[in-house]
Amino acid sequence: MRYLAFLAVGIIPAVSALWPMPRTLTNGSDFLILSPSFAINVDITKPPGDLLAAVAQTKTYLETDKLERLIPGRSASDAPSLKKAGVLPSLTLSLQSKSSPVLSIASEAVKDLHSRSEGYTLSIPADGSPAHLSANSTLGLFRGLTTFTQFWYSDAEGKTTYTNVAPVNIANDVPAYPYRGLMLDTARNFFPVADIKRTLDAMSWVKINTFHWHITDAQSFPLSLPDFPELAAQGAYSSNQIYSAADVQDVATYAAERGIDILMEIDTPGHTTAISLSHPSFVACPYAAPWSSFANEPPAGQLRLATPAAVNFTKEVIGAAAKALPGKYFSTGGDEVNMKCYDDDAQTQADLKASGQTFEQALSAFVGATHSALAALGKSAVVWEEMVLDFNITLAPDTVVMVWISSANAALVAAKGFSFVHAPSDYFYLDCGAGEWIGDDPTGNSWCDPFKTWQHAYTFNPLANITSEQAHLVLGGQQLLWTEQSDANNLDSIVWPRAAASAEIFWTGATLPDGSPLSGTEAIHRLHDLRYRMVQRGVKAIQLQPQWCALRPDLCNINS
Amino acid sequence: MRYLAFLAVGIIPAVSALWPMPRTLTNGSDFLILSPSFAINVDITKPPGDLLAAVAQTKTYLETDKLERLIPGRSASDAPSLKKAGVLPSLTLSLQSKSSPVLSIASEAVKDLHSRSEGYTLSIPADGSPAHLSANSTLGLFRGLTTFTQFWYSDAEGKTTYTNVAPVNIANDVPAYPYRGLMLDTARNFFPVADIKRTLDAMSWVKINTFHWHITDAQSFPLSLPDFPELAAQGAYSSNQIYSAADVQDVATYAAERGIDILMEIDTPGHTTAISLSHPSFVACPYAAPWSSFANEPPAGQLRLATPAAVNFTKEVIGAAAKALPGKYFSTGGDEVNMKCYDDDAQTQADLKASGQTFEQALSAFVGATHSALAALGKSAVVWEEMVLDFNITLAPDTVVMVWISSANAALVAAKGFSFVHAPSDYFYLDCGAGEWIGDDPTGNSWCDPFKTWQHAYTFNPLANITSEQAHLVLGGQQLLWTEQSDANNLDSIVWPRAAASAEIFWTGATLPDGSPLSGTEAIHRLHDLRYRMVQRGVKAIQLQPQWCALRPDLCNINS
Repeated sequence: MRYLAFLAVGIIPAVSALWPMPRTLTNGSDFLILSPSFAINVDITKPPGDLLAAVAQTKTYLETDKLERLIPGRSASDAPSLKKAGVLPSLTLSLQSKSSPVLSIASEAVKDLHSRSEGYTLSIPADGSPAHLSANSTLGLFRGLTTFTQFWYSDAEGKTTYTNVAPVNIANDVPAYPYRGLMLDTARNFFPVADIKRTLDAMSWVKINTFHWHITDAQSFPLSLPDFPELAAQGAYSSNQIYSAADVQDVATYAAERGIDILMEIDTPGHTTAISLSHPSFVACPYAAPWSSFANEPPAGQLRLATPAAVNFTKEVIGAAAKALPGKYFSTGGDEVNMKCYDDDAQTQADLKASGQTFEQALSAFVGATHSALAALGKSAVVWEEMVLDFNITLAPDTVVMVWISSANAALVAAKGFSFVHAPSDYFYLDCGAGEWIGDDPTGNSWCDPFKTWQHAYTFNPLANITSEQAHLVLGGQQLLWTEQSDANNLDSIVWPRAAASAEIFWTGATLPDGSPLSGTEAIHRLHDLRYRMVQRGVKAIQLQPQWCALRPDLCNINS
Repeated sequence: MRYLAFLAVGIIPAVSALWPMPRTLTNGSDFLILSPSFAINVDITKPPGDLLAAVAQTKTYLETDKLERLIPGRSASDAPSLKKAGVLPSLTLSLQSKSSPVLSIASEAVKDLHSRSEGYTLSIPADGSPAHLSANSTLGLFRGLTTFTQFWYSDAEGKTTYTNVAPVNIANDVPAYPYRGLMLDTARNFFPVADIKRTLDAMSWVKINTFHWHITDAQSFPLSLPDFPELAAQGAYSSNQIYSAADVQDVATYAAERGIDILMEIDTPGHTTAISLSHPSFVACPYAAPWSSFANEPPAGQLRLATPAAVNFTKEVIGAAAKALPGKYFSTGGDEVNMKCYDDDAQTQADLKASGQTFEQALSAFVGATHSALAALGKSAVVWEEMVLDFNITLAPDTVVMVWISSANAALVAAKGFSFVHAPSDYFYLDCGAGEWIGDDPTGNSWCDPFKTWQHAYTFNPLANITSEQAHLVLGGQQLLWTEQSDANNLDSIVWPRAAASAEIFWTGATLPDGSPLSGTEAIHRLHDLRYRMVQRGVKAIQLQPQWCALRPDLCNINS
């Protein structure tokens, strides 16, 4: 009868805006109003400041989201149900573990991936008794607060905040994979700190826990290192387009307080042309022409990996950058090494001859030097897939590999026994499909055409191509934005809400709480909700469909 | 010697940021500083208010653009040249025609396309004597002011405003084609008036003179018509997503004062589902399933073109919308008529039987009725190409046809003898390449893949496919944004600076002032400049290349 009643007033089944979907969830279909005096109580002795800040932010979101339900008729359809709804007076936070002192979110967020505790348990009764959120860590509480904010809608006047899916029970929602990232390239074009922070906020809303900061590249070196000030002074686009040491600390702290670790990357030995502006003797083939013979895109230039002084310099730079960050991971890059650049470089050839090393031996020593700087800081190195697939070099067993050229290459990396992160260009590259940006190529398309829709990204299977014995090697995955055609002006619109696709795949795993596989036709309801909520919070996420469809996704499927 | 001197300090040849390039231009390479007390004198008796407003806006742009030259070293390279530069004290505006009263820009901008006077003559001496701008109309003066603002750069401190290409002489720069447009669909997703106005500003900066406002469609009817308030009351997405009569006047006035006419479109007989919400008896197959059998996208629904009451209603709606606008053109649409919708509609079949008309005869009568409403207002009708290519119906000879399905179809339309506007999906559709938005189609791509880059759009030849005898039929062209995946959040980034490509093709014509053909490798320098200027003025135009390339486009070509 209830089903029929729903149909009679034209209401489609209730859909809550949870993203990523918790791994466990039971819920009802009662309406529950957030009390105008709703309180969040922190039942923790000496709670860390960032937890209290997160509680305050949660209350702000509850007050300002003001998202009407995305159904035909919007909130007006809910008015009758609200008259008999319970009222939620409060949410109480507690820690399951009583160890002291209580660590901050920021401290928990930068632990080793395998020791990070992100799980939480949340209950929201429908009868007006208080809600409870508990976790083993403040990081888990932060994740739970994020989930809590996603249950609530507003009426058209913005006066009543309510959910339509009470009671709610989420028992120990823990992520399926420890690494859930987003990569941003801040070297092709520069992004002000404010734009990075807004992106970090949006990442935290979908429980992404790693900001892969591809901070330098051939085109510019915007990272100011106190021990090497000349790198940014000469290599940044301008003095206004530099990340100072204080900026990096600011971003790292802002991120960690939101449950996000920084995986910084200084790409080596390729993608380093900008270093030649301050250290010309360390770079082979700088600005060589035609660029297409010496690099995948202009300008050409690679670190002289066989030159002892260049090796030592690179090791010190990597160490200096890594020691400024609290996390356990740092990327030395390693993609797209161009052989002609080195073959044609007299200095490199002379250095190889002098040392008696093959190129591969020199590369191994070069990478080993930078990785030893990381090991000395207690950190693990991250590299692009070429470092294990294209060259026979020695890498520490804790090295993490980014698979990017093709999703199929995960199998090759797994066969080498390395842990890896899925970053496949055929699913997760956010820049693909925007056309050729190289000049004088009017018929050229994006090298990784077509555009990677959220629907396509959402079909990615982290365990495809590998054996069940290799499954433990999958640390997680991420979507990535290379910024040849992006800057702050289109950052939000090219990233959101698409980057939420991988956030759910790697948190929720293969199945929804009811055991059914992830499905785009189910997810689109929630993704629309997430997108509208992002816009309410100031992130310019794009519309995925005409608004008519956003209220009725089931009527806009290909076969509906 | 001078050339060598330039090379010695690493300066690439001067490039001014003119867009569209004037059809006539001679210039030098002297530096000239805008006087801190620079004045614009209007040597016109009783100048219209919108001309004075345009002068004030010009002065504001000169003060706030603060664009450093896009060259390595930026403005620092220019410091030596500025020491010996002349100073420009003023610009004087005058009208070549002494007829009175002087018409406003807004009045000139909405004249018949063939009587619109957009030409101007501009001289900027290098020796410190005043600059002069003259034209036959205030609209021409407005175009000249727009050109004038594009010559100026700033030093890094923003204290000195200067050009590096004085003296300048532009003798009678008149557009190659009278119609240069941009289409925006405000029905799939709604765009607030403020976003439309910002777009109109950007359009005016590149001398686009027509805003093709695709204001209604199947998904929503946001246009509030005083005589038919129920259409928007029932058919808009919400009461906050309606263009009131005052909004339309506001937009039309804002546009006209910037030299832009409104070409409003109420698409008929297809794309009208939203009308069924207030007038169910006038719409066949509303929301029929599966939508793919009845429409090109959801939801299905078309006006009952054989039903006399529906025909009369449509005629009155078109007339009501058209009479509220000052321009000479109005579009009745006519694309993507679905035959199964009518074949299956008992009412339509009964009406055809009762009248004894064939479908084509009924369509002809339906279109004739709406066009007669326009003719009664002294306006010409605009239709999509299907109305002349897919059906044998009677159309007035002044009907303007939009060619959209393929650029090649221009030949077919020309063969029918109609004037037409180039709006080809294979060159000018700004939404292409963003992936499939229809749900449950994770492998689907944009129907008009790939993305239409500015480089590709810029290769469009308005005279391809037609004979020289048919050339007079080409009114011009436009780029278009269909908004299934756009709203205000990505409006700027998906439109700009790409839409400037057609603006230049249809103003400048086939050749640059030196007689050479339009070329992407020449244009990219100016387009970067235009893009940076747009950003300075608050339009979030995207980066076309890494900033490294923006300062050195010649080094980022495919063969450089």
